[in-house]
Amino acid sequence: MRTKDSKGVTRFSISLPAELAEQLDRMAQEKSYANRSLAVADMIRAQLVEHQQQFGDKEIAGTITLLYDHHKQHVQAALTDIQHDHHEVIIATLHVHLDHHNCMELLAVRGKATVIKRIADELIAAKGVKHGKLTVTSTGKDLPS
Amino acid sequence: MRTKDSKGVTRFSISLPAELAEQLDRMAQEKSYANRSLAVADMIRAQLVEHQQQFGDKEIAGTITLLYDHHKQHVQAALTDIQHDHHEVIIATLHVHLDHHNCMELLAVRGKATVIKRIADELIAAKGVKHGKLTVTSTGKDLPS
Amino acid sequence: MRTKDSKGVTRFSISLPAELAEQLDRMAQEKSYANRSLAVADMIRAQLVEHQQQFGDKEIAGTITLLYDHHKQHVQAALTDIQHDHHEVIIATLHVHLDHHNCMELLAVRGKATVIKRIADELIAAKGVKHGKLTVTSTGKDLPS
Amino acid sequence: MRTKDSKGVTRFSISLPAELAEQLDRMAQEKSYANRSLAVADMIRAQLVEHQQQFGDKEIAGTITLLYDHHKQHVQAALTDIQHDHHEVIIATLHVHLDHHNCMELLAVRGKATVIKRIADELIAAKGVKHGKLTVTSTGKDLPS
Repeated sequence: MRTKDSKGVTRFSISLPAELAEQLDRMAQEKSYANRSLAVADMIRAQLVEHQQQFGDKEIAGTITLLYDHHKQHVQAALTDIQHDHHEVIIATLHVHLDHHNCMELLAVRGKATVIKRIADELIAAKGVKHGKLTVTSTGKDLPS
Repeated sequence: MRTKDSKGVTRFSISLPAELAEQLDRMAQEKSYANRSLAVADMIRAQLVEHQQQFGDKEIAGTITLLYDHHKQHVQAALTDIQHDHHEVIIATLHVHLDHHNCMELLAVRGKATVIKRIADELIAAKGVKHGKLTVTSTGKDLPS
Repeated sequence: MRTKDSKGVTRFSISLPAELAEQLDRMAQEKSYANRSLAVADMIRAQLVEHQQQFGDKEIAGTITLLYDHHKQHVQAALTDIQHDHHEVIIATLHVHLDHHNCMELLAVRGKATVIKRIADELIAAKGVKHGKLTVTSTGKDLPS
Repeated sequence: MRTKDSKGVTRFSISLPAELAEQLDRMAQEKSYANRSLAVADMIRAQLVEHQQQFGDKEIAGTITLLYDHHKQHVQAALTDIQHDHHEVIIATLHVHLDHHNCMELLAVRGKATVIKRIADELIAAKGVKHGKLTVTSTGKDLPS
């Protein structure tokens, strides 16, 4: 049973094990949410993002985070080659010089989920990359506020 | 207001934008949940697991990825305020205009893990942020090639 | 008179007032050029970039640098609105938190020269922007190495 | 090798990529120069004016915009080496893949004016960089709104 008010807000009740409900409230507070509903709404949206990316043809946006030592031979040339081969899905790359050796690169990407995943795999597997991770979000189009 | 029955189950109500509530129901069905409460309970548990990860005093580098609608009142001002309060750990922010409404922001961060985690929580919980994620990597110092 | 060798390099002589030639050599050295020809080649390309941007329909790339105090009311909302209205020519924006008040934003842009100039004018004129500058470069297509 | 005649005119030869030499001649004609030497002399003088600007010990913020072909051997490695040698003044670098060959890089910098100027000179003079420019703004501290 749910009720919908004039502003397009739906109100409904859910049942949770008591201890889980308590931990939810504590976590929402620790994470600075104004109230429990906002915390739950964020979890639902996060789950929707993950759920939607299973469908390979869907357009997603996201970040590829890479950590590497730019002194390792050819690593940077290799990464740039891969990135240029896919310049239509890589919007821009933010390069941070962590210290004399270590670089962190953040690639802002947008495109079909399958394509993005393949590029991320290729970059992370490149020789010289110490650590890499693909973070998927939505383009926002199908994700209600 | 919440009620607790004899079996340790708590029942409370939450408010969601109507469209989000509809998508929740559709997803819960696609994922074969018997009901909406069970789906939400699983999301809360998954979030708790992440939240309870230990974040120590170690220095980390990483990315905070945010998705939001810049037309939502005050969201951008709120995000910038939080970022400026912590400008010593936020190296730079890459802002991508996905479409007329949706923005994706990539924050390159570096600092104590606990501090980074708290900032990420605060940004993701900010009203108007549709989706956000903290991606942790290393500063590279203690990570051999 | 000029000669062209097999590798597509042209060699020709130019006449300069003696003092200017000396100052050229000194400047080339101070700017770390390997030789005088490389310094002159860079000046020619820089001049070509400026020469080509006169033609409004030509596609250019470039940077818009903005300095502002994000606490000034509405400045950030105004800037984001302008940027989203033109999201097809603004590739991405790099936001740097200089201190508690001051922000520097670097917009990577690409599009018709007239359009880019109009957007830059609009952003720089926005209330609250302390300083702004458009730096034009080429998309590289018509600029030989 | 250069020769100097009685009127204080120096004559020397320079080598340019053939296509660049052709574009120089076309531009010199479009700009109504009587000959190629006069066009080059004007470029040198303009560059000297910029080069001789005083850059003191004052802290500035700014942007270095670079255009290069990442396929040119060693250019990217050279640029990254220079950047890492100065990672304390280079806040972050935004890399945009313009097409299969051309890259645009925006470096957000902050530091003593003389230091920034020297780094910009070094990057722009690096072999393979087609075009580069330093755009100076303020850190905002001494610049009233």
